Amino acid sequence: MTKTLTAASLSAALLVFASPLALAQSAPSALVVSTTEALRDKALAGSAAYSLLETLTTEIGPRLAGSDAEHRAAAWGVATFKAVGLANVHTETFAVPGWTRGEERAEIVGASPQRLVVTALGGSVATPPDGIEADAVVFRTYQALLDAKPGALTGKIAVVIQPMPGGRDGAGYGLNYRIRGQGASEAAKRGAVGYLMRSLATNENRAPHTGTMVYMPEFAGGGASGGKIPAAALSVIDAEQIGRLADRGAPLRLKMVLTPTVRVGATAETVVGDVVGSERPDEIVLIGGHLDSWDLGTGAIDDGAGVAITTAAAKLIQDLPRHPRRTIRVVMFGAEEIGKAAQAFASVHAADEPHHVIASECDFGAEPVYAISLPKNAAGSAWGLSFAKIVAPLGIEISAKLPRDGGADLEALKATPVAELAQDGTHYFDLHHSAEDTLDKVKPASLDKAVAAWVSFAYLAADTDVDFRSLAAQPAVK
Amino acid sequence: MTKTLTAASLSAALLVFASPLALAQSAPSALVVSTTEALRDKALAGSAAYSLLETLTTEIGPRLAGSDAEHRAAAWGVATFKAVGLANVHTETFAVPGWTRGEERAEIVGASPQRLVVTALGGSVATPPDGIEADAVVFRTYQALLDAKPGALTGKIAVVIQPMPGGRDGAGYGLNYRIRGQGASEAAKRGAVGYLMRSLATNENRAPHTGTMVYMPEFAGGGASGGKIPAAALSVIDAEQIGRLADRGAPLRLKMVLTPTVRVGATAETVVGDVVGSERPDEIVLIGGHLDSWDLGTGAIDDGAGVAITTAAAKLIQDLPRHPRRTIRVVMFGAEEIGKAAQAFASVHAADEPHHVIASECDFGAEPVYAISLPKNAAGSAWGLSFAKIVAPLGIEISAKLPRDGGADLEALKATPVAELAQDGTHYFDLHHSAEDTLDKVKPASLDKAVAAWVSFAYLAADTDVDFRSLAAQPAVK
Repeated sequence: MTKTLTAASLSAALLVFASPLALAQSAPSALVVSTTEALRDKALAGSAAYSLLETLTTEIGPRLAGSDAEHRAAAWGVATFKAVGLANVHTETFAVPGWTRGEERAEIVGASPQRLVVTALGGSVATPPDGIEADAVVFRTYQALLDAKPGALTGKIAVVIQPMPGGRDGAGYGLNYRIRGQGASEAAKRGAVGYLMRSLATNENRAPHTGTMVYMPEFAGGGASGGKIPAAALSVIDAEQIGRLADRGAPLRLKMVLTPTVRVGATAETVVGDVVGSERPDEIVLIGGHLDSWDLGTGAIDDGAGVAITTAAAKLIQDLPRHPRRTIRVVMFGAEEIGKAAQAFASVHAADEPHHVIASECDFGAEPVYAISLPKNAAGSAWGLSFAKIVAPLGIEISAKLPRDGGADLEALKATPVAELAQDGTHYFDLHHSAEDTLDKVKPASLDKAVAAWVSFAYLAADTDVDFRSLAAQPAVK
Repeated sequence: MTKTLTAASLSAALLVFASPLALAQSAPSALVVSTTEALRDKALAGSAAYSLLETLTTEIGPRLAGSDAEHRAAAWGVATFKAVGLANVHTETFAVPGWTRGEERAEIVGASPQRLVVTALGGSVATPPDGIEADAVVFRTYQALLDAKPGALTGKIAVVIQPMPGGRDGAGYGLNYRIRGQGASEAAKRGAVGYLMRSLATNENRAPHTGTMVYMPEFAGGGASGGKIPAAALSVIDAEQIGRLADRGAPLRLKMVLTPTVRVGATAETVVGDVVGSERPDEIVLIGGHLDSWDLGTGAIDDGAGVAITTAAAKLIQDLPRHPRRTIRVVMFGAEEIGKAAQAFASVHAADEPHHVIASECDFGAEPVYAISLPKNAAGSAWGLSFAKIVAPLGIEISAKLPRDGGADLEALKATPVAELAQDGTHYFDLHHSAEDTLDKVKPASLDKAVAAWVSFAYLAADTDVDFRSLAAQPAVK
């Protein structure tokens, strides 16, 4: 509440100076434009991003929030930021649930016995050590599960095999997200003893995709499990196999064994460093990615790439003889995958938030940016028009739409204006949260194109007097 | 020996009738040509192959030689052949080593601890239950391992990360085969306690590729292991990760756990059925695929496809109102992957072999045939020229080269002439022996194109008087 009031007061103060005339006068100077263009071209010619990503994914590998590997990753992050020359480099430690993957297997028993490839959803409870065995009820859509009556799944394993639509913007993930996030609770409410789902993925392979799920307290009364039943994702191919067997109409019996554990006292770290502004160091342009990854792959596209892209962009700016007017704060968030970084960062930086002029997180892979959404009224401003010209050679359009979001780790910064640099996600969900999220999927030239977009955004937002909050407070400019 | 003499005597007898004139007179009649073309076109319009493959891979799934699943597959094979209408349908049972996969994992320990994705090679001995841990010696080429001196690997885990070349004909597999087949023995001879190799694969993913290996008795004296050390394949991506860590020059320490077991008294079955010839039923055209598969995938391309293609081809011929002159024997071999089917079949069919006029096994995936190699002098014969015209619309060339081989399960039939129907294997080794060998990789239209080639070959070879052994006994026709 205090935070919001502070931000609102600040916006009101800035509003005094904001007018259509001020918008016109917000055009970046020729020097700022040429400096941004030079940074853009330097990134395209070869940035540090791939080398950073190679080191992180090779020397640390997977880095699940709260694990030893994540602590090693944080130490790497501190050393990296220091090597880049950032100021105020430090870590911010916070408590996380120490969920740790155990054994995980599933099989069809009965007339067509065969192994199924599964992976536990993050946060799932364990089965008994020797697993659970039960008849399956196969749902072709999630809605069909929701349509099942209370008690309809008593003693059963619920299996949802709905596919996820693909696309450049990843909208299918949002559409299907609740299948993973809430499906186990919905199944438990109807009496199920176990939950399997087709991986949220856009290609066909044998690698299952993990991700967080939550048990919904309001379902605690549902079923013998008290609402907490073990939950895992099938590989897309195994889900298809179950679909074919279900088509045959014969009963399908499954066994699943999941033995995750929870370590008490686990912590994660967010790493922070600054490119200190030359004139207005207390005004902050916030960029970053998340350092933690799921434990199956090496977190190359999710989100080593985001860490590498934003760090490489910061390095190009840090190396300039004159820093931009504002500070660029670069963040490696510590526990995005389990949804714990946003609140931790917002709490530590509550006093900073009124100074956040704009923020954006890079967390959608290693492909180039194709569109940028800016806070309200920014796209049409002189600043925005200048930005559009700078990024047009990269094939980037400044979108007429407002940002969908600025990244999961910024969602608790309610008063901070956000931008969205949309990367091509056509193949992102082929790999996301699976063992296939590895370095070989990343093309250095694509990474450099993404750095070119990010360095242009960060520099142009930092070397300006435009206040995106005051712009947003004005009536919409058509 | 008897077998060879018998075949030789038979060839000599037939030679009396074989002359350039006889070759000219070997041209198929217009009716035979039009029947073959009709079969070809019927296959292209839609054969039974995909449905057979769907059933086998869905209802049986993986079917490791000697396992319960292989027995279920053999029962399916008998039922399938009977449903097709074949005669003399039966199984031939033989003993196999009951090697069964257990737990399998490996990890890097030390400064960059992380999990590695591995799978035991077929036939590997187990590690102790809690595994072995040792320093690694990484070899970028297999030759470098062979160049290592005796004792150079004492107490180490040898790791060979040589890539395998790709290509349409799969020649890279032959070139690299000994890395899997003999590598563990070569490492043991030099003192190694464990062996890891980069999967024999032509793409980059996280699925490791298994396959048979043998311990070579002549190395029994090498090392403390008596020559038998546990051996596994790394996924290509994990091999690359080890390569990058090795590049850094720091010591690399590995742990590996493999717990395969061997069941005593295991058996496999080969399934046999005949399209009985209308005039010369004792002359046999032998076609087939192998029914067993590795246990990681569902054996769709290796070799459910071969079983499905040859069975579908046989069904088209079985359904004809008049059968071809000769018998077409269709075989689902029972233990190809572990190299046990060939000798078993040759032993049972020793008395038949003199009656084998030609044979070919379909065991290279589910893509269309692009070239056919025939026994010596067949390509240039009137029969061969007619065959070339029939398959030309399928985009198939009759090769000037002799067959490389007729399939692994025919190699003990030394006196049987073989043909090779070469399928496009560009992506075969992306999937082969891995968890990714599944139905979704198979395109029904490609399978039907392969059936069109096989049905043309089988029918034209069965409805002729040409004897491929007598042709081969003549001087080469230029």
